[in-house]
Amino acid sequence: METARTETPRKSDITRAAILAAARCRFAEDGYDQATIRAIAAEARIDAALVMRYFGSKENLFSAAAVFDLELPDWSDTPDAELGQAVARHFVDRWNADDAFKVLLRASPTSELAVSRMQEVLSGQLEPVIRKLVSDPATAPLRAALITSQVLGMALARTVMRFPPLISLERDQVASILGPVFQHYLRGRLDADLPKKRGAPLPR
Amino acid sequence: METARTETPRKSDITRAAILAAARCRFAEDGYDQATIRAIAAEARIDAALVMRYFGSKENLFSAAAVFDLELPDWSDTPDAELGQAVARHFVDRWNADDAFKVLLRASPTSELAVSRMQEVLSGQLEPVIRKLVSDPATAPLRAALITSQVLGMALARTVMRFPPLISLERDQVASILGPVFQHYLRGRLDADLPKKRGAPLPR
Repeated sequence: METARTETPRKSDITRAAILAAARCRFAEDGYDQATIRAIAAEARIDAALVMRYFGSKENLFSAAAVFDLELPDWSDTPDAELGQAVARHFVDRWNADDAFKVLLRASPTSELAVSRMQEVLSGQLEPVIRKLVSDPATAPLRAALITSQVLGMALARTVMRFPPLISLERDQVASILGPVFQHYLRGRLDADLPKKRGAPLPR
Repeated sequence: METARTETPRKSDITRAAILAAARCRFAEDGYDQATIRAIAAEARIDAALVMRYFGSKENLFSAAAVFDLELPDWSDTPDAELGQAVARHFVDRWNADDAFKVLLRASPTSELAVSRMQEVLSGQLEPVIRKLVSDPATAPLRAALITSQVLGMALARTVMRFPPLISLERDQVASILGPVFQHYLRGRLDADLPKKRGAPLPR
C-alpha cells in the first residue's frame, strides 16, 4: 500500500538492511563460527568497520539477523483430517522463503544464541497455535516439539547432508509425505504404553 | 569371548584407543571447528604432539573417530505391522550407544567429511537393508532417507536444541512415538499425487 510519505528511506536504513541480508546469507551458508565479519561486509559491498559500527559485534549481528517468524496461520477452521497436511505445507513453504531458518539450523551446533532462539520459536510461536488445535492442551508442548524435530530433520537432510533422494523431491511431495506424520504428531496417542500394543494401527 | 592369546595389548594400541575416545567426546560436544587437538589431548591425558604423531592431522583424526556402524539387524522375519516399531527401537538404542553419531551430527554443518560420511551411512548401510523390506526396491533410497531425516531431527532436537518436552522422554516413549512414523516411511504411499487426496487415512 502506498503511503503519503514521500521522503526516500534514510541511507543508514539501506546500509543496515544490506548488512542483515548479507549476514543471513553468510551465516546460513557457513554457520556461526566460519562466517566472518569480513565476508559479510564483502557480501554487502561495504567496509567491515561499518558493519561493526552498525552492530557492535558478531554476536549482536547474528542476533539481529537470526529473527525467524513462522508466520503461523490460524488452523482452527481447517477440517480435522486435513490438519497434518496443512501444517506440513506451511512449514515447507516457510523454510524455503526465509533464510533465517537455515541460519539457526546451521549455527545451532556451535551457538547457544541460535539454540535459545530456536527454543523461543518453538515455545513462543508454535506451541500456542498447537494448543488451540488439540483436545488435551497439556500435550501441546510435546506435539509441537515432535513436529519441529521432523521439520529440522528434513531441513538438515536436504540442506546440510544433501541426501540425493530428498533433494530431488518437489515441495508438494515433501508436504504430502510429511502430512500423515504431522497428523500423527497432532492427533496420535503419545503415551508410554504404546509399546505394549506394537502393531496397532496408527491412531488418528 | 576369551581367546587363547595371553600377550597384553601394545601400549600404542592403548594410546590410540584413548585418543579416539577423547576425540569422539570432544567432536561430539564441540563440533568439528571448535574441538582442538589440544583439548582432545588433554581429555586423553597425553601430549598434543603425540596426537599429531598418531594421526597426522585433525582431519585424519576426525576421519578415524567418526566411524559410525548402524549395526542393523536383519528385519526380514519381523511381522510387517511391527516393522516401524522395530526400526525405531533400534535407532533409539544405537544413537544412545555410540558417540560417533553425535559427532557426525554436530560436525556436519561445517565439515564436508562429516557430510560425506553420513551420506555413506545412508547409502551403504541403511538403504541395502530397507531394500530387502519393501515391495518396490526403487523406493528404498527415498524411504531410507526419510527415516534418517527423522532420526537426525530427533537427535538434533534432543542433543543440540535441547527441547524440554523431548529431553524428558524415555527411550521407550521415543520408540513408540516414532514407530508409526517409520511404518509410514516404510509402507506408505510416497508418490506425488497424494496432495489431491488430502485427508485420506494414512496408507499402511
